[in-house]
Amino acid sequence: MAVQFEVEGEQIVVNDLISVQALDKGFFGTAYQGRKTKLELMPEEALYLMDVRNAVCLKNGKAISFNQLARHYLKRKKFLARYYGYKDWRDRGIIARSVVEAQGSYGRSPVVKYPSKEIEYSKVKAKALFFADDLMAVIDEEEEGLRLYESHWFGQYGTYKAKKNGRYLKLDAYETLFLMKHSGMKANVGEKALVAACRKRRKDFLALYEVYEDWRLRAFVLKTGFKFGTHFRLYFPGASPALANEEWMHSKHVIHVFPRESKMLISEWARAIRVAHGVKKTFILAIPGVKKEHAAEVDFLLYHRKKGGLIENPKEDAPKYAMLALSEEEEIGGEELAQAIEQSKKQGLDLMLAICDRETSVTYYRVKRIELPKSKYEYYEIEWRQP
Amino acid sequence: MAVQFEVEGEQIVVNDLISVQALDKGFFGTAYQGRKTKLELMPEEALYLMDVRNAVCLKNGKAISFNQLARHYLKRKKFLARYYGYKDWRDRGIIARSVVEAQGSYGRSPVVKYPSKEIEYSKVKAKALFFADDLMAVIDEEEEGLRLYESHWFGQYGTYKAKKNGRYLKLDAYETLFLMKHSGMKANVGEKALVAACRKRRKDFLALYEVYEDWRLRAFVLKTGFKFGTHFRLYFPGASPALANEEWMHSKHVIHVFPRESKMLISEWARAIRVAHGVKKTFILAIPGVKKEHAAEVDFLLYHRKKGGLIENPKEDAPKYAMLALSEEEEIGGEELAQAIEQSKKQGLDLMLAICDRETSVTYYRVKRIELPKSKYEYYEIEWRQP
Repeated sequence: MAVQFEVEGEQIVVNDLISVQALDKGFFGTAYQGRKTKLELMPEEALYLMDVRNAVCLKNGKAISFNQLARHYLKRKKFLARYYGYKDWRDRGIIARSVVEAQGSYGRSPVVKYPSKEIEYSKVKAKALFFADDLMAVIDEEEEGLRLYESHWFGQYGTYKAKKNGRYLKLDAYETLFLMKHSGMKANVGEKALVAACRKRRKDFLALYEVYEDWRLRAFVLKTGFKFGTHFRLYFPGASPALANEEWMHSKHVIHVFPRESKMLISEWARAIRVAHGVKKTFILAIPGVKKEHAAEVDFLLYHRKKGGLIENPKEDAPKYAMLALSEEEEIGGEELAQAIEQSKKQGLDLMLAICDRETSVTYYRVKRIELPKSKYEYYEIEWRQP
Repeated sequence: MAVQFEVEGEQIVVNDLISVQALDKGFFGTAYQGRKTKLELMPEEALYLMDVRNAVCLKNGKAISFNQLARHYLKRKKFLARYYGYKDWRDRGIIARSVVEAQGSYGRSPVVKYPSKEIEYSKVKAKALFFADDLMAVIDEEEEGLRLYESHWFGQYGTYKAKKNGRYLKLDAYETLFLMKHSGMKANVGEKALVAACRKRRKDFLALYEVYEDWRLRAFVLKTGFKFGTHFRLYFPGASPALANEEWMHSKHVIHVFPRESKMLISEWARAIRVAHGVKKTFILAIPGVKKEHAAEVDFLLYHRKKGGLIENPKEDAPKYAMLALSEEEEIGGEELAQAIEQSKKQGLDLMLAICDRETSVTYYRVKRIELPKSKYEYYEIEWRQP
């Protein structure tokens, strides 16, 4: 016989004992007011049971349809995204539970440590010509240009992948500003005019620059990530284009900057991660700017698989991830994402972004915190992943 | 001896005969006021010769540097992008010339023809429940849901890639609006309220819908392109999810919508093409809305290679492409791009977008026009390509 439950006021409850036992065994529902003979269901659980297990939902003694139950929740934020996130996890044979059940910190939120080195950049003895419409600068003093290129991989000397074809150094706007600030480089514009020209073209210029500067001051090398669809590609301390003469040096990381105050469609956000994944780079999300303290709600606690094929369950195990359910056409803000990450960190869980597309297919992105010594910003590795 | 030229007022001219003959043979410069013994150079040509051929530029009898010449052009739009586009083409041993030399139409602009079929969609007999915050609708009448899914691949029945897991049909906002307009489907909201909710979330909703409707009315099937980083993926007439039971049906095309009035950073625009390329899909750019008539300037005429290893040249051959030079951090508008395409169409040339990144590495995207019978919008295949 199919499982059966009832709408009672604002709640969905399971009264008949056979249903109660079957559901409790399957990790659906919670004891109703401490009683073990009655269960309460989350709306997502009830709809899931109707959707894929032919459960019957009664209201005033009459069976109601999926939509008749679902319409109670029409006003809830991203209700369907949450529902399909929940459904997808359960469809995989693993357990998702309400975040209300979270207890303290589970200590399951790993941190990836990155190296950091002291570095000093010496004075630049040449003057750069900055082209405001191109946001690029040229140094035509060959010796100094070559030195900047070879010692710290600033700019592009000669031609890309052929430094001997051509004699000048081309700097992008981040490099230009950095050398003006940290190496006393002169140009045909001052720092203020440079920043104004750049912000006119792209509003997020300073957010990108903050990230560029933060890593450069810790001896990393950042170059354009254009070919990989991101703002920067990243080389670890010690990288040099000189090594790259014989064999081109490949970066393994790319950085995408997501300013706190900006909003982005999930579909656009995911696109950047897709490109990085396609070219086998580790995707780093940077959230510059000052951290705020309050944390946002995540959606579900996720249990995963144990070694040997068994699954984790709420009676015996701790949850592994916190799920933030999102939909393809939703907008997310940098601040909002940072807060959800903060919340899962407090719970000691990794954050799993579950993105429901327009066909209700769910894609997962796992978020790991990065520890970059002395940095005041937040960085995360984001990994596209099958659960 | 190095080639030598002089700045004379606004012009750069070549006076000494040895330089004139060497440059003419290399397809640099044009006859100065009809004289064959004196050449005029474009600034890009002059800078290129200084950059990679050690040419000497004189002003008032004194040699000047690259930047001393380049600073004359500081105020020109995207001067460096144009310069590096020109340089890259020449570095490949092939010829680029000023667009001023274009003569009439060269008839070298191919068109890709797409099929088109008459189609009628029958009346929908079920009512959809639309979730405004998710921009998705659910039909819980199983028979009608399954019919819509199997006959025309509207929505997702059951579960993605597992239609038998679950009993309901999920429609995205484009499908919902289309079925309301063309199949009389009813929902818990009217057309107007639906459109308002969608536009609140994404301003470009109607532009995307116009494209969706245009192809659907010609019997194509469009589904979300989320997994490929685009707005839609496209199936040719006859596609069906029923065929997909045994073997999943793979789309070969994706569509990205670029509204005329919208502006986008080149880097973001290119990112969408990268994802499509990475998954081996043909990228279709859609520019909906009413065509305007004026055409925009392109940057260079490009000659390419002939069979057998020889190169095309302006003395014997017609150009093959028109180059529009762009830089990574530039913004481009849908209208602006449409106009450049229009201009190259008038010249009978394919458009080649040359995008100069922050390291002056140039990437090429070839634009081919698509003919979709009876459509009033413009569609282009865009192909990432090595020249």
